[in-house]
Amino acid sequence: MTYCVGLKIDRGLVFMSDTRTNAGMDSISTFKKMHVWEEPGERVIVLMSAGNLATTQAVVSLLDERTKAIADRHATLLETPSMYQTVRMVGDTVKEVIAHSSPTGDKADSYFNASFILGGQIRGSEPRLFMIYPEGNFIESTDDTPFFQIGETKYGKPIIIRAYERTMSFAETVKLLLVSFDSTLKSNLSVGLPLDLLFYEKDAFKISLKKRIAQDDQYYRTISDGWSSALKAAFASLPDFRE
Amino acid sequence: MTYCVGLKIDRGLVFMSDTRTNAGMDSISTFKKMHVWEEPGERVIVLMSAGNLATTQAVVSLLDERTKAIADRHATLLETPSMYQTVRMVGDTVKEVIAHSSPTGDKADSYFNASFILGGQIRGSEPRLFMIYPEGNFIESTDDTPFFQIGETKYGKPIIIRAYERTMSFAETVKLLLVSFDSTLKSNLSVGLPLDLLFYEKDAFKISLKKRIAQDDQYYRTISDGWSSALKAAFASLPDFRE
Repeated sequence: MTYCVGLKIDRGLVFMSDTRTNAGMDSISTFKKMHVWEEPGERVIVLMSAGNLATTQAVVSLLDERTKAIADRHATLLETPSMYQTVRMVGDTVKEVIAHSSPTGDKADSYFNASFILGGQIRGSEPRLFMIYPEGNFIESTDDTPFFQIGETKYGKPIIIRAYERTMSFAETVKLLLVSFDSTLKSNLSVGLPLDLLFYEKDAFKISLKKRIAQDDQYYRTISDGWSSALKAAFASLPDFRE
Repeated sequence: MTYCVGLKIDRGLVFMSDTRTNAGMDSISTFKKMHVWEEPGERVIVLMSAGNLATTQAVVSLLDERTKAIADRHATLLETPSMYQTVRMVGDTVKEVIAHSSPTGDKADSYFNASFILGGQIRGSEPRLFMIYPEGNFIESTDDTPFFQIGETKYGKPIIIRAYERTMSFAETVKLLLVSFDSTLKSNLSVGLPLDLLFYEKDAFKISLKKRIAQDDQYYRTISDGWSSALKAAFASLPDFRE
């Protein structure tokens, strides 16, 4: 399983993903699920994936390969004219990979399933955030739905729903995401540390911060322990039931 | 969908279930998912159900019918010698109903699926709590896993994991369950009010409290509003991320 969140705030885009991959309980590995294409001053594109690892790796490899073959660069992630064209290209690649893997050639609803969060900014337009379905189509975040989750999304959703505000600072957003991830980590073994964090500040056209958060990360420990106590205190502060 | 929790504390058993049933988004109804068989001074048995409504109703009807036909009462929920025999009987009924509904006659893994939480006490033994699978087999709660959830279980799990203690009072347990249900209600439309609450106090051999909690319930409103604020305050109390 996997847990990834992409979140839009006024100040930019924040991405967090876990790194655990499992094929059964007895086959657990660490794989990066966050991929970045950057051309400083021009564009930053971030892609996070959940689902069948063969599919997600194939999608990333295909996208990557195209950006490296100079002759082919007219249709690559480093050359697309807009985020909309970018998400269309990624969506088409997803559809192509899944169709190629699936025995019947046309089932998105299969073992080979994967979904993606794509976000970034290309000079000349605003930062945008998308979620891409296994069918290759996609939706964009709006003010009403300013974040996307993929993978094991449920445990960590309630806190985001309650605490998110678009005016949050980057520092607060990281705190929110860590609380959400910590709830998920505590509930589902198939989501695991370390976590990858990326912050893209609006109009920076370069990665503002990229960091891997491991078990011994001091801030993560503060949040994980602190949230347990804070939650218990919050719970204790409410009145008990009286008949 | 459905959300039900059965929880064991030192003082007894606490059950909570929602009442929303849906067959598609445009067909939503209210159905009781908590069923009680009581013989004061002798036994209390509580059954909560999630899954296909036709299946769960058939199981409850079959169990009920048998307790009403006097001639047949040697093998009913009011006559079983122990909780273990009771859960076996219910498990067999589940298996029978699903096998009867399923076209191929043997698939638990089907449209007709349902799962159950069964708890109670019969004079001569301790209170016990079980979860019954669609296959008709079951597991019992232990000190390590003192609660069961069925239906839409994920949103409401993190708070139970963090705040549950077996020494909790009934009043605290109701608070915990309401917080867990409130998180679920806020995240999934297919879980809905009113909620059914039942408390069975150890060695009482009668229902200690049974109550329906509706939208306008004063205590529910206090918890729902209070939890939002308490959670935000807890969140604000943690330090923000610093690079």
